[in-house]
Amino acid sequence: MKLATYKDGSRDGQLVVVSRDLASAHYATGIATRLQQVLDDWNFLSPQLQDLYTTLNQGKARHAFPFEPQKCMAPLPRAYQWADGSAYLNHVELVRKARGAEVPESFYTDPLMYQGGSDDFLGPCDDIVCASEEWGIDFEAEVAVVTGDVAMGSTPEQALEGIRLLMLANDVSLRNLIPAELAKGFGFFQSKPATAFSPVAVTPDELGEAWQGGRVHLTLQSTWNGKKVGMCEAGPEMTFHFGQLIAHICKTRNVRAGSIVGSGTVSNKDWSHGYSCIAEKRAIETLEEGAPKTAFMRYGDTIRIEMKGRDGSSLFGAIEQKVAPPGAAAASE
Amino acid sequence: MKLATYKDGSRDGQLVVVSRDLASAHYATGIATRLQQVLDDWNFLSPQLQDLYTTLNQGKARHAFPFEPQKCMAPLPRAYQWADGSAYLNHVELVRKARGAEVPESFYTDPLMYQGGSDDFLGPCDDIVCASEEWGIDFEAEVAVVTGDVAMGSTPEQALEGIRLLMLANDVSLRNLIPAELAKGFGFFQSKPATAFSPVAVTPDELGEAWQGGRVHLTLQSTWNGKKVGMCEAGPEMTFHFGQLIAHICKTRNVRAGSIVGSGTVSNKDWSHGYSCIAEKRAIETLEEGAPKTAFMRYGDTIRIEMKGRDGSSLFGAIEQKVAPPGAAAASE
Repeated sequence: MKLATYKDGSRDGQLVVVSRDLASAHYATGIATRLQQVLDDWNFLSPQLQDLYTTLNQGKARHAFPFEPQKCMAPLPRAYQWADGSAYLNHVELVRKARGAEVPESFYTDPLMYQGGSDDFLGPCDDIVCASEEWGIDFEAEVAVVTGDVAMGSTPEQALEGIRLLMLANDVSLRNLIPAELAKGFGFFQSKPATAFSPVAVTPDELGEAWQGGRVHLTLQSTWNGKKVGMCEAGPEMTFHFGQLIAHICKTRNVRAGSIVGSGTVSNKDWSHGYSCIAEKRAIETLEEGAPKTAFMRYGDTIRIEMKGRDGSSLFGAIEQKVAPPGAAAASE
Repeated sequence: MKLATYKDGSRDGQLVVVSRDLASAHYATGIATRLQQVLDDWNFLSPQLQDLYTTLNQGKARHAFPFEPQKCMAPLPRAYQWADGSAYLNHVELVRKARGAEVPESFYTDPLMYQGGSDDFLGPCDDIVCASEEWGIDFEAEVAVVTGDVAMGSTPEQALEGIRLLMLANDVSLRNLIPAELAKGFGFFQSKPATAFSPVAVTPDELGEAWQGGRVHLTLQSTWNGKKVGMCEAGPEMTFHFGQLIAHICKTRNVRAGSIVGSGTVSNKDWSHGYSCIAEKRAIETLEEGAPKTAFMRYGDTIRIEMKGRDGSSLFGAIEQKVAPPGAAAASE
């Protein structure tokens, strides 16, 4: 099934069930009002939502209305955890190669993850508000999962069982703030502003055979200022699958319901697939021409991130954002 | 006023108002059931809780009962953000000096902070469950604040206005996992298991004149295995006050209601005050004797963290935890 959260002026929005073709939606009122509530009590509530989903897909839901992604918050407008991996080692290799650094051997066996801020996510069509264009505004197109409870010490296989939903993410990064921040030794902080998520979150069964071994075997499309810059395969080159990423967190603590775990920038060795973040394009330019020539995002720039199923239909709806200065964003609200 | 969250089998527990002397408590039912709810709607709900608090302190609350810290979850059993600073530069200087490293000049103007996991906090008397004693189990006694909404771009002074509550924290750290993890460059992850918080969270006015300039001018007591090892002054040597720490987060994003911001290990230049984490004791031993001799915590070890007001009464109640292997913890529940 497909779930979304409609803006209603509240912090957590209103849960809606969305039809498979993303054409119509129906408030989940009577079952649950917020997505976190469903994740907290998945076994009881999700079958009821599934029933509504079936009715909606049959065109029999009485109070259905046209689905509008512009009205969406992130499926979880705020979450108790946002842990982002860097599971496509090609991305790491590329970025490091461009600055003449090696990839440590351990990176191929021990996932790289960072803890992100999760109190203020962006909806799929919300502006990327940034106080300075000089910070090196970049998008990062990713796949993400939402978990149920996964106990401390769980294996990757057990962790896979804890995956409830999948989404797309735009893990916006401020590239020019990263070097100084990482040099401090405590990881990302100011260099990772609010993350945006796709209009809908979907249960793994919606992906059919494309969901295999904890990886999504589909193409992630990134379109920057109307130009398709990335058509990256999300499946085969994901070095660590989502079960491994979740198990990494579980080594020393419990993962609780509603935790969001990201894949990191989807990246392919074959450069003809394009890129899911500008930093990679710049790394390739550095390797090929000695210096980067593509600039980061500017105010007014747009980014569209989408993934289509094997039948060509949009699975999660599209993330479609514009970069804006603080004032402009307030004015357009 | 003083607020706590009682265990009731649910994920978020039941909000209770606790008397100033921590002797009695009263369910906040009818006003709010969960602390996050109060933080989401502070201006409307907090005056009602304040009224109940006044009645409770006067001994006139009809359904008051004896307050038992053992029945507490963390005031916020899960939160949308846990951002921990390292605001006592002496701690950083000491640990670095012991390994022959310098403290960069920028550390005195740019706060060091890390994003922590916030989906599964420990109650004040919950066991510190750890799968291995070899991971270098350490306590870290800290002061923490809970915020309301603080907008992107806020100044330290504006951020101070956003502080709603104060607590104590035990930011448990797995010291032997830290070097390899920080070497990966993305900050702490597995080396920071679940954090514990004091039985009660208090509004800043409870501290009277001890709350000044965004700092708590009181002594933080740490008692390890029954021995008082730390009597550290939390005020004067806090290089960055809480407003500065919150403003650091706000540079590139909004901070939303219910965010928890920690001070980092409370630390004093004068070693006679003792220590708020074992790593500091070991650093001092290394500097004085060439090698650390105090071992980290073992299964069965206890840690008590408390802060008394100027009148000698406990302000937040005590964090009192025991280190335990996974099985033992389950058995004792």
